[in-house]
Amino acid sequence: MIRHTVAFRLRHRPGSTEERSFLDAAAALADIPGVERFEQLDQVSPKNSFSFGISMEFADQSAYDAYNTHPIHVAFVRDRWAPEVEDFLELDYVPLRT
Amino acid sequence: MIRHTVAFRLRHRPGSTEERSFLDAAAALADIPGVERFEQLDQVSPKNSFSFGISMEFADQSAYDAYNTHPIHVAFVRDRWAPEVEDFLELDYVPLRT
Repeated sequence: MIRHTVAFRLRHRPGSTEERSFLDAAAALADIPGVERFEQLDQVSPKNSFSFGISMEFADQSAYDAYNTHPIHVAFVRDRWAPEVEDFLELDYVPLRT
Repeated sequence: MIRHTVAFRLRHRPGSTEERSFLDAAAALADIPGVERFEQLDQVSPKNSFSFGISMEFADQSAYDAYNTHPIHVAFVRDRWAPEVEDFLELDYVPLRT
């Protein structure tokens, strides 16, 4: 299992139509084959500057790679993520191996 | 549900006895009342500088507050986290509300 997560902040005003549109569009990532346990989240800690999170799991690296190159993902990154996200951090987790 | 997560990097050499000792000690946090779905994780994305993660869930803010002030947590932060962690980022998530 690989859990792919990203914390992010949008360029849009909180509560705006543009914010809602972005979050709705992000939901379509859940339909990409291999995506499991897809979650959209609010980031609520005051100890960082991110507003939202997305978390999903893949069975293995092959499923993760297929997601990265899937046309839905590629188009989302190009058309929505790149122009609308102000800052983000990706964190990918696997169960502790050591 | 509140998911409390922290990504971190230790001062210890990867694979060292000191690293193992820290990770073993962190496991005791799972025994604090209110902690659910406790996970210790390896952070594997090359897009950040963190090596490990911890994730846990609380039913509500009251349970989270009780964790923060619990003697096991307070002692762990003082005796292990503060001296042994080189860098970290806390991210707290709740299901998307908007």
